[in-house]
Amino acid sequence: MQKDKARLRSPWLIRTYAGFGDAEASNQRFRENLSRGQEGLSVAFDLPTQNGYDADDAMSAGEVGGTGVAISHLGDMRVLFSGLDLGRINTSMTINATAPWLFSLYVALADELGVPRDQLRGTTQNDILKEMVGRGTYIFGPEPSLRLQTELVSFATQQVPKWNPMNACGYHYMESGASPAEEVGFAIGNALMTLDRIRETLSQEQFAEVVHRLSFFINSGIELVPEIAKVRAYAQLWPLIVKEEYGIDGVRWRAGCQVRSLTLTEQQPEVNIIRIAYQALPVVLSADARVRALQLPGFREAIGLPDQGEQTLALRTQQVLAFETRIGDYEDIFEGSVVIERETKRVIDEARAIIADLRGAGFEAAIGTVARRLTQGLVRSQSALEHGERVVVGVNAFLDPVDAMKDASHEDDQAAKAAGVARHLERLAAWRGERDAAAVAEAREGLLRVARDGGPVMEASIALARAGGTTGEWTQTLADAFGGRYQAPLGAEVQVERPLEVPKATKRVRLYLAKSGLDGHVNGVKLLAYACRQAGMEVIYSGLQQTPEAIAAASAQEDVDVIGVSILSGSHLHVAKHLLAALERREARDIPVVMGGIIPDQDAKALREMGIAAVFTPKDSDVSVLVETMLRLAGAL
Amino acid sequence: MQKDKARLRSPWLIRTYAGFGDAEASNQRFRENLSRGQEGLSVAFDLPTQNGYDADDAMSAGEVGGTGVAISHLGDMRVLFSGLDLGRINTSMTINATAPWLFSLYVALADELGVPRDQLRGTTQNDILKEMVGRGTYIFGPEPSLRLQTELVSFATQQVPKWNPMNACGYHYMESGASPAEEVGFAIGNALMTLDRIRETLSQEQFAEVVHRLSFFINSGIELVPEIAKVRAYAQLWPLIVKEEYGIDGVRWRAGCQVRSLTLTEQQPEVNIIRIAYQALPVVLSADARVRALQLPGFREAIGLPDQGEQTLALRTQQVLAFETRIGDYEDIFEGSVVIERETKRVIDEARAIIADLRGAGFEAAIGTVARRLTQGLVRSQSALEHGERVVVGVNAFLDPVDAMKDASHEDDQAAKAAGVARHLERLAAWRGERDAAAVAEAREGLLRVARDGGPVMEASIALARAGGTTGEWTQTLADAFGGRYQAPLGAEVQVERPLEVPKATKRVRLYLAKSGLDGHVNGVKLLAYACRQAGMEVIYSGLQQTPEAIAAASAQEDVDVIGVSILSGSHLHVAKHLLAALERREARDIPVVMGGIIPDQDAKALREMGIAAVFTPKDSDVSVLVETMLRLAGAL
Repeated sequence: MQKDKARLRSPWLIRTYAGFGDAEASNQRFRENLSRGQEGLSVAFDLPTQNGYDADDAMSAGEVGGTGVAISHLGDMRVLFSGLDLGRINTSMTINATAPWLFSLYVALADELGVPRDQLRGTTQNDILKEMVGRGTYIFGPEPSLRLQTELVSFATQQVPKWNPMNACGYHYMESGASPAEEVGFAIGNALMTLDRIRETLSQEQFAEVVHRLSFFINSGIELVPEIAKVRAYAQLWPLIVKEEYGIDGVRWRAGCQVRSLTLTEQQPEVNIIRIAYQALPVVLSADARVRALQLPGFREAIGLPDQGEQTLALRTQQVLAFETRIGDYEDIFEGSVVIERETKRVIDEARAIIADLRGAGFEAAIGTVARRLTQGLVRSQSALEHGERVVVGVNAFLDPVDAMKDASHEDDQAAKAAGVARHLERLAAWRGERDAAAVAEAREGLLRVARDGGPVMEASIALARAGGTTGEWTQTLADAFGGRYQAPLGAEVQVERPLEVPKATKRVRLYLAKSGLDGHVNGVKLLAYACRQAGMEVIYSGLQQTPEAIAAASAQEDVDVIGVSILSGSHLHVAKHLLAALERREARDIPVVMGGIIPDQDAKALREMGIAAVFTPKDSDVSVLVETMLRLAGAL
Repeated sequence: MQKDKARLRSPWLIRTYAGFGDAEASNQRFRENLSRGQEGLSVAFDLPTQNGYDADDAMSAGEVGGTGVAISHLGDMRVLFSGLDLGRINTSMTINATAPWLFSLYVALADELGVPRDQLRGTTQNDILKEMVGRGTYIFGPEPSLRLQTELVSFATQQVPKWNPMNACGYHYMESGASPAEEVGFAIGNALMTLDRIRETLSQEQFAEVVHRLSFFINSGIELVPEIAKVRAYAQLWPLIVKEEYGIDGVRWRAGCQVRSLTLTEQQPEVNIIRIAYQALPVVLSADARVRALQLPGFREAIGLPDQGEQTLALRTQQVLAFETRIGDYEDIFEGSVVIERETKRVIDEARAIIADLRGAGFEAAIGTVARRLTQGLVRSQSALEHGERVVVGVNAFLDPVDAMKDASHEDDQAAKAAGVARHLERLAAWRGERDAAAVAEAREGLLRVARDGGPVMEASIALARAGGTTGEWTQTLADAFGGRYQAPLGAEVQVERPLEVPKATKRVRLYLAKSGLDGHVNGVKLLAYACRQAGMEVIYSGLQQTPEAIAAASAQEDVDVIGVSILSGSHLHVAKHLLAALERREARDIPVVMGGIIPDQDAKALREMGIAAVFTPKDSDVSVLVETMLRLAGAL
């Protein structure tokens, strides 16, 4: 199997929000993330840059390069995108008050590099209202802020037509206390207020262009149903409302998303991995209301900026969701759903009322209205937490630490297990010594009789339990009655439409396959038996629970070329030692032995040193490599 | 806020599959898990016990206490359940060939303890077909195996009526290669074959009891839509088919679930945390087809048995899903869904054909049929993996390790950041030195003019970018045009239906609240300002970006009792040092200073040593504690 040849087309753009230190450090992180399967950039800027201070300003002391990358001038921008093709990459910039400036630097860089402005793709957040009520990186007052915001939108629509010049942000409302309907209402209300302002200066045609380019940046929280309804409300309401308000048809709701950072807890940070995974669902589950781009936070977000490992895990979360769950293969799974449609309508109705309120009040008055409503939401949410109506694992419930992040050495468990086994064997010996042997024999006799002659087994079994019988005795008694232990058919000789591709044997090869230990999972041997037959080998499968002695005897007698032993129960070292010794005794030590199973690295090393020819673990998922190994060992490649 | 008082009623029974070493070690693990919020036991037995060998049998060598607990006799059972009330606990036992024996031990123990048999609750898996075709821990041949299986069912129905005597297992079919329809078809087919056999010996009334008690144990995989359809198919088909076949009404489909262990990878084990979280969804999302009990594997399952940390994280996954997502608060979210109803019908139709086939062939012949179909499924799935049609992150795509599990010391990142900041400042100084100062001044002049007089800002900004202007210069130019930087209203003075409960000030207290650093997130100060006013304090909020000097000056001048500084940008040490020095200079060092923000433990310690009176982080989610601290420091408690 060739690695990395999986067919990968994600139903949304997979991003990571990244940036730290200077342009050079961030450029390295970007390239690293892109090499790991990230599909678009999402640039985090440091607070001085967001607030319009140069790095050498006194106000910037201690904050340069902290929450993102420091960009002070065109030279930094050159370094930040060095080696990346501005004509191909999709760049999201989380920047607001200084968005016109950062976008100016980006455009100036593109001009300098000869990349036509109409090839630039990406997004500037460029949303001031939510900065004033929640995120706080505004600089100027309402009037000039709104002017800068709308100028960037108008400029980009005309000069940089593939750019999303404004990401109307619902995100920060939710982070600051908004309900789902408030998030939708504030975000769309703000977008309309911006559009109302832009409309004055443009032709209807130009204005329609602006409306088509306007996109959203939304939040996604842990309460799945309200969040699913929220995203659907966004997607349904936006085209409807721009049609009603501006008479513009065919507008599609386009959005990016970052899931809620503020639900992530400092306590039990591992649990955030799970929260993030669930929070990603509402924005991708609905095919008709799916975001275009998604970025997930690091799971230690409440503690500090994500390191490469945390960012990679965030990326992996999206990759599992996009490629393993296959959610993108289906049409909208909530179309027709009674509950979801009802909840969506509820959000839409409430959001419409909020939108009307905001537009009625105007931009400047809206700032105060939104700020107060958010405070009410914050207090309500805090109160629900304190009264236990809202549960946050690790915060008001289930307070013990998880401690899952340390390496799994399992040393404590191994010691506990060994002590347990010793205790168990002692107790068993004592049990046998202390019980009434005659009573046991009588109860066994009774059980044998009912098993053989057809009486009720359960009461006889309970009688044996009470008399002091053991698991082995119960089983042996029944095996005596039923004619011994059974071997089920493996069922590995089948036809399939598309057989596995395996190398072919260049000469006759006899393979002896066995399961050893008491584990009975046969997927591995089944697939191997099937594939080895495909390869032209003769496969002798002896069945479950084969002892080392039995494997050695049969292999020597059948004159096989290779022995394959599958063992999943952990007793591989024990089995290997006895098997090799048994082969030795039969002067058959030259038959190569291959072992497969759940075998830790250090044990695999020990097995090879002991003389096992090859060791395979679940990681070795390529069956043709296993077959090739068998053939090589048999000299038939 | 009282901890752990959240209202916790899970929509399903939260279990962990556990057991290792001997009865004593396992009993300890059970109690530990129960204390962490687990709601039912799910006992894992070791392979000797599953295969009917005593621990001192030669066949048991190396396997005792490995995959679960070793139980050889009634004495072990006493230890295993020591301190647990058999009359109250719900015990699931994953046991098959020796199920009649282990259940006999359980009943004998209950008898001995005086717990009436009709109070025992729990489940014995007791399903032999799937052992013969997939899991391998069968002992006897088809005929006696089916007899033991049905005897246990009949016995329990009559004697232990709250017990689920058979968990017809779909689980292992899927693990062994079955498609969703095959899982449903094999599981229900097998259940019907068992019932067909039992029916001969019972009255219709007794038989109806048996049918009502029969439950299922199912799998849940990563492909969300097929899995959702599968669970719904189970839930819809089972009542229908027992009505059709046996004329029994009102039967409900009851099931437990463990999500797919075999999709978990040895590579990048952290990614399994995410897989497990997603795999849990299909069996709980549908209110009308929700499992009764769920257990999740440890994320290092492909490497070894789970340790306590892994088990706790599996438990936390269920707790987040049950209590944070609130999925249990809604009726069935897929009722009416076009896609899901179509896919469900497809599974039902295909499963019906499989069921008819199996019953037609009879139990013994069914073993071979199922085994061969599973092999075909295995080969198909392996082939899809090798051709890249099926993506498994870490196996055939995205192969770089994640390395998220090491502790987040962030040392490398800190060093990289510091180097980046130094580079950035050097580059900025060099940039200022090398550019054409006159060109910059001219471009700033141009920008100032358009900003002040209403011309287009964007082209003027791009011109400044090209001339070598900086972020700070662009911002300052516009601030000059717009009359300076703006402070938005906090909006913290609001009414809510249910105010937060906080202690009240016993005397007049003036609190000075400020945001320092450039971060602008105001949730924390908002909630604190609101709560402190609730407490009767006078709150002076000075706004964002307050310098240490400004905070000290205002606090001294306003003669405040406490200073609260919120800082989320990471520059807390820098701010604290300068603030305390500035207070010292004003002889106001006696005003206690409280700081809140994203502050690592070692920094919090350093702050307290430096003289900060109290430090709060996101972990301190109880606002009343913050208020209490303020009041205490002000001597007003």
